Amino acid sequence: MEQNESFNLDQIQTVLEDLIRQRHWTGLKHFCIEQEPIVLADALRHVSAYDQALIFRLLPRDFGITTFEYLDIDSQTHLLKGLGQSQVASLLNEMSPDDRTALLEELPGPVVKQLIELLSPTEREVAQTLLGYPENSVGRMMTPDYITIHPQWTVGETLNYIRIHGKDKESLDVIYVVDELGKLIDDIRINQILTAELNTPIQKVMNDAFVALKVMDDKEVAATVFRRFDRAALPVCDSEGFLVGIVTADDVIDIVAETDTRDIQQLGGVDALDDPYMKTSFWVLLRKRARWLIILFVGEMLTATAMGFFQDEISKAVVLALFIPLIISSGGNSGSQTSTLIVRAIALGEVRSSDWGKVLKRELLSGLVLGSILGAIGFTRVVIVSGFTGLYGAHWLLIAMTIGITLIGVVTWGTISGAMLPFILRKFKADPATSSAPFVATIVDVTGLIIYFSVAALILRGTLL
Amino acid sequence: MEQNESFNLDQIQTVLEDLIRQRHWTGLKHFCIEQEPIVLADALRHVSAYDQALIFRLLPRDFGITTFEYLDIDSQTHLLKGLGQSQVASLLNEMSPDDRTALLEELPGPVVKQLIELLSPTEREVAQTLLGYPENSVGRMMTPDYITIHPQWTVGETLNYIRIHGKDKESLDVIYVVDELGKLIDDIRINQILTAELNTPIQKVMNDAFVALKVMDDKEVAATVFRRFDRAALPVCDSEGFLVGIVTADDVIDIVAETDTRDIQQLGGVDALDDPYMKTSFWVLLRKRARWLIILFVGEMLTATAMGFFQDEISKAVVLALFIPLIISSGGNSGSQTSTLIVRAIALGEVRSSDWGKVLKRELLSGLVLGSILGAIGFTRVVIVSGFTGLYGAHWLLIAMTIGITLIGVVTWGTISGAMLPFILRKFKADPATSSAPFVATIVDVTGLIIYFSVAALILRGTLL
Repeated sequence: MEQNESFNLDQIQTVLEDLIRQRHWTGLKHFCIEQEPIVLADALRHVSAYDQALIFRLLPRDFGITTFEYLDIDSQTHLLKGLGQSQVASLLNEMSPDDRTALLEELPGPVVKQLIELLSPTEREVAQTLLGYPENSVGRMMTPDYITIHPQWTVGETLNYIRIHGKDKESLDVIYVVDELGKLIDDIRINQILTAELNTPIQKVMNDAFVALKVMDDKEVAATVFRRFDRAALPVCDSEGFLVGIVTADDVIDIVAETDTRDIQQLGGVDALDDPYMKTSFWVLLRKRARWLIILFVGEMLTATAMGFFQDEISKAVVLALFIPLIISSGGNSGSQTSTLIVRAIALGEVRSSDWGKVLKRELLSGLVLGSILGAIGFTRVVIVSGFTGLYGAHWLLIAMTIGITLIGVVTWGTISGAMLPFILRKFKADPATSSAPFVATIVDVTGLIIYFSVAALILRGTLL
Repeated sequence: MEQNESFNLDQIQTVLEDLIRQRHWTGLKHFCIEQEPIVLADALRHVSAYDQALIFRLLPRDFGITTFEYLDIDSQTHLLKGLGQSQVASLLNEMSPDDRTALLEELPGPVVKQLIELLSPTEREVAQTLLGYPENSVGRMMTPDYITIHPQWTVGETLNYIRIHGKDKESLDVIYVVDELGKLIDDIRINQILTAELNTPIQKVMNDAFVALKVMDDKEVAATVFRRFDRAALPVCDSEGFLVGIVTADDVIDIVAETDTRDIQQLGGVDALDDPYMKTSFWVLLRKRARWLIILFVGEMLTATAMGFFQDEISKAVVLALFIPLIISSGGNSGSQTSTLIVRAIALGEVRSSDWGKVLKRELLSGLVLGSILGAIGFTRVVIVSGFTGLYGAHWLLIAMTIGITLIGVVTWGTISGAMLPFILRKFKADPATSSAPFVATIVDVTGLIIYFSVAALILRGTLL
């Protein structure tokens, strides 16, 4: 009711709470069913679990189920605890199987067992089958609610069949044609059925060409296939080609967002979170961050070791120390940029493993150009500052040259490392997204220091060093 | 034909090229139309533009259009150049309007004008209307191909109407009910129509509740609404509530991926690319990276300035210089982690602007704990190394304390900066994703150095300093 919505969410929440406080149950019920279920679900998010349960007991069955499906999994779990067993049973039995799987997935084993026992025999079988597929597989996100028809039927027969069996189906946008055994032989968009004459045989509408997901495929495969094929729904087959479920595009939107969230978090140097930031407990969040921070810290300790070797140089030319942060961060930044670009391009399938050579060539050139730009700026800065302040002493020009040349080397090295690390990780079957900005920076820092002091040794030998 | 596919893409490509070389035109045509259009489109990607044009001239009209729609925009552009004017006209006229908008968007103005003149008057009006909406608006991604019905019709009348007018519609999953003026009054899933008795009036099937996008909304709003409402398609209304188009979930999958790509690239410290990595020209890519690298470099120059103030301290205690990279990178890493988490949580709507206080409290505590962990490791390392090597001289314990305390301060500061920067950027109407890992690191580097040398001054005064 977005167009003619008369209350905003906060107002709905206030009205709900007022009515509960006044114990005005009929008013409460009427107010609730006047809302769109999704809007009500949204408003309920901020209502206490106790009040939520109260409201759900009042709602008409169908309306309650739809509203329940729109709640987030967290609220669903809380609510189940507050409801009577018969109401829990009715909610679970009527939920669409894919939403139910998503809910059950999140609950502890014993609770799931208890809940599954509340299901009717048919629904129990469905739930157990879906939960039987591996986590993150297409099997877990599919729904068995779809229409199958046979090639020898007519369009009219099909429409009659849908009229009787189509209720409660997740999506009727695509209808599936199977043979007598249940093997998928085609998918037909409802458009084609709706726009054909009633006496047309289904065989005439078929094109014998379809794209199917496999039930054991990873969820991310589903996302890729959807992205490529622009479909509203895709059929899911087992290894023998029997149709076992369908996946709809709206569920895939969530998968794409989830996958991307994981990649983004990894790129930021955090183990991917399983829950939203605000709902992740403080200690879980801490553990996910501490792990990488410690790994990176230990790696970064090599910089202290490396610099130990250059202690003499630094004490002779303290001025060299002043540029350490500038130099290593330039390498780190160029590396972060490149690895981010490459990781994302790999994730979207724009760059394949075999492209590493092409990428290397390109990034080598980029690195040289970017390094030269920063090198020129760095050189100029030293020249200007020493002109005004004399901060860098008599050998300012040599120092400026050291900084300039080092930057070319460090930025080129950072760029190449950032470009190749994702490929190397992939080669070793690790997730390319692990090559996070901090990870690349750490690798580049140590080598950056070595490059810096080697260039300095070459240029400043006999003068400062 | 994934299940019973007899050729893989490379094989199809080879067969196509063989047939072209043999000038076996009928064989080529038959081979092509045996393929699923999407598969053919995929295989064509690696065929030369000249051969592509050749093949398209052979394809039956409808088959050619479907195949054309599956090509990526780049190939479409190339192909248009290779085709005769009449064929271009037929392709453009028959393409679905949203795909056509996506293609026209990418072409230079004069070409668009030329192409639009090839359209039939009706299609020209449609194309011009869609192109009239601002870039990145919902208007640009919608299609005007949908079915509208009136509340006084019956289900049977509706089905008859769809049978006649439903061809070429993008999606029939949802049917839209409008009043006599064209104002949207409800959306009905096709399920409800297909499963109702033929003589039921549409009014009985309506629930007078719908969610609509607004035509001027940003595309990302559409993505958020789809993610929240789990719909196959959403109607688009103008500011007065008149139905002007629909957006389908499959198109939104691309938007989600695009938006995330932009965020990821920005988080990596690169201006977002408009095209895939491999298709972005070397110089464009360079410019997008150079801009941020230079900004960060100039910011990072402050570290050299800051360290200039501590030159005396460094020359007295060169050992302090050894830990500079370790310390500033720890601040940078903890900042990158935090900003990544917060930016993503904001993008997904999990964290709102008003949550900043909650986030600050949480991250302050996280920072202190993480800092203490790294501080303890750093302290231990100095103790161990100096036990074995004597590298840090007589005052090793004071140095170990300096490192440990500095790390607590720097990591806490990094964490807080990373957490607050996205909120600050948002406050100033900038994209929170701009607070990239490199950006946060740069900010934290300068302050990290100041913290380090201040702590050192406090602890080492009278001994090393």
